[in-house]
Amino acid sequence: MLEDKNQEKTSLAELGEFGLINHLTKHFKVYSSATLKGVGDDAAVISQSEKELLVTTDLLVEGVHFDLSYMPLKHLGYKAVMVNLSDVYAMNGVAEQITVSIAVSNRFPLEALEELYAGIKLACDTYKVDLIGGDTTSSTKGMLISVTALGSAKKEDIVYRNGAKSTDLIVVSGDLGGAYLGLQVLEREKQVFQVNPENQPDLDNYTYLIERQLKPEARKDVPELLKELDVKPTSMIDISDGLSSEIMHICTQSKVGCKIYEDKLPLDPQVISTSEEFNMDSTMIALSGGEDYELLFTVPIADFDKIKGNPNFSIIGHITEENQGMNLVTRANQEMELKAQGWNSFKG
Amino acid sequence: MLEDKNQEKTSLAELGEFGLINHLTKHFKVYSSATLKGVGDDAAVISQSEKELLVTTDLLVEGVHFDLSYMPLKHLGYKAVMVNLSDVYAMNGVAEQITVSIAVSNRFPLEALEELYAGIKLACDTYKVDLIGGDTTSSTKGMLISVTALGSAKKEDIVYRNGAKSTDLIVVSGDLGGAYLGLQVLEREKQVFQVNPENQPDLDNYTYLIERQLKPEARKDVPELLKELDVKPTSMIDISDGLSSEIMHICTQSKVGCKIYEDKLPLDPQVISTSEEFNMDSTMIALSGGEDYELLFTVPIADFDKIKGNPNFSIIGHITEENQGMNLVTRANQEMELKAQGWNSFKG
Repeated sequence: MLEDKNQEKTSLAELGEFGLINHLTKHFKVYSSATLKGVGDDAAVISQSEKELLVTTDLLVEGVHFDLSYMPLKHLGYKAVMVNLSDVYAMNGVAEQITVSIAVSNRFPLEALEELYAGIKLACDTYKVDLIGGDTTSSTKGMLISVTALGSAKKEDIVYRNGAKSTDLIVVSGDLGGAYLGLQVLEREKQVFQVNPENQPDLDNYTYLIERQLKPEARKDVPELLKELDVKPTSMIDISDGLSSEIMHICTQSKVGCKIYEDKLPLDPQVISTSEEFNMDSTMIALSGGEDYELLFTVPIADFDKIKGNPNFSIIGHITEENQGMNLVTRANQEMELKAQGWNSFKG
Repeated sequence: MLEDKNQEKTSLAELGEFGLINHLTKHFKVYSSATLKGVGDDAAVISQSEKELLVTTDLLVEGVHFDLSYMPLKHLGYKAVMVNLSDVYAMNGVAEQITVSIAVSNRFPLEALEELYAGIKLACDTYKVDLIGGDTTSSTKGMLISVTALGSAKKEDIVYRNGAKSTDLIVVSGDLGGAYLGLQVLEREKQVFQVNPENQPDLDNYTYLIERQLKPEARKDVPELLKELDVKPTSMIDISDGLSSEIMHICTQSKVGCKIYEDKLPLDPQVISTSEEFNMDSTMIALSGGEDYELLFTVPIADFDKIKGNPNFSIIGHITEENQGMNLVTRANQEMELKAQGWNSFKG
């Protein structure tokens, strides 16, 4: 959990809750002039603008969403912020503030929380968001992180999930499946380590995949890019649960169908080689992998020229009438119904 | 956990996360015209006003903050909302929206979460706040609830913790110590029950105390009352951790001292009688009990006539210069230094 096992450990009980919050948050900078009061009162105070307010929240639970045996705490803090910022960007907005609440068992010393908050601070500094509040408490078991992100967007810029229209192009940023395969690699190495702790893993072939899993980046740049290209998506969602699941949200809420083309799915070479190594189907991984935090959106077909050839985007299909269903067109030109096999934490 | 042990149980895995959120939130009304989009997209969308935005968040953990052996789930849902609204009112603001995230182990069937959400809905309906989002996930053990509340206030109306001035009067709403004693009564009955499950507890003498513990109300009326009285507090805080701890926050942040008078502390007759029965000092309980969710505030001495005699408020002392320290004046007219013995979840 900590790299130097010999360093001093400070128990959380010594500090108490108020001391702990102060200790962990005192080095955070304030970026937004709208943040009038952050940590330290009953509530944070934020100056409102003419834009609309965006609010989103996510919960990460040890043993369900992360495993501290291979997830360094600093990365966990960073990722907990990314997961939430990604939802703000998926509304075509700008993220501005976060609250972070944590519940931790007594097995975590202060130094562990400092690592966690170092990751949260790195995310705040990189994405220019302000930590404005939170809660810290003990848990009877394990660690849990609850983040709420606030952002803003002009009313006319906000993109919902329900605006996709028949013939719209379906576009995805970046590439798919890397985060899921990164998790598979880390799980395998964990098992190897448990059998032989002396074994030094060689992870050179998986660096991209592991980074996608441990240090995902939210696509802050996509709303900016779309503005530059003068493209307003008709619908948008972030890919946290897998492409199939997300496109089905868009189709259901927009009352449309879709066609996704297998040969258009953007895959990193490491995704292809590692899928083969694990004897898994890379298409299935791209469709159902999850945790990539790319943005999936639809644009009118008239915007084709603005999107095509842009290295940030892949056009993977198009929207159809609702009665045509949601389908994947395989490389063999066969149509298969899309199934959501996204993440369901309630399933064993 | 559920009153009718024979009713049908539905496992959470059957519904999945999206089904679950929809199922639990579909009956919630939207009260604020500012809530443009609540549950169902990547983020909620809230129309901003000329007022400032208030944001606060709290985490409640099973086994740390609540015990389901005597806390009905409906009450727990209600209380989880109250805890957060109270923080908004403590800024002299109006609460408008909440997000609710829950992590639950598989031992909870859907019907248990329905009970929890019935309490959340009752709180939303009673306090006219909108549920705008959240996250549901599984936990490896127990239940955890994370609520974030949003509210608003005009900039000139917001009351911070740091504005108390020497000679200001210290005022508290309602009465103190009830919630703590309610917990003691419930803990005792739990032990009695464990020894003899046939024993039917007679709780008639403790109804007020138990209600204070299980169904606290946030003081939405206090900011409204103060406005009617044309009083703007110089500082305000809600009493979640006990009077001593809260007054010390005000004094530390305002750089002042205080004198609290033991004989002015507002105590309900059940607090006095039950303190005696438990052989506890009612003053200690009022100072350190916590969870009363009353508001503690300071007003200029010139407002004395507006506050005195108001049945909602008790003047319990006054602010002094910082170098005079923070003191309790006992009934025997002796000064004792105040000590914060508030709730620290990290201490055993």
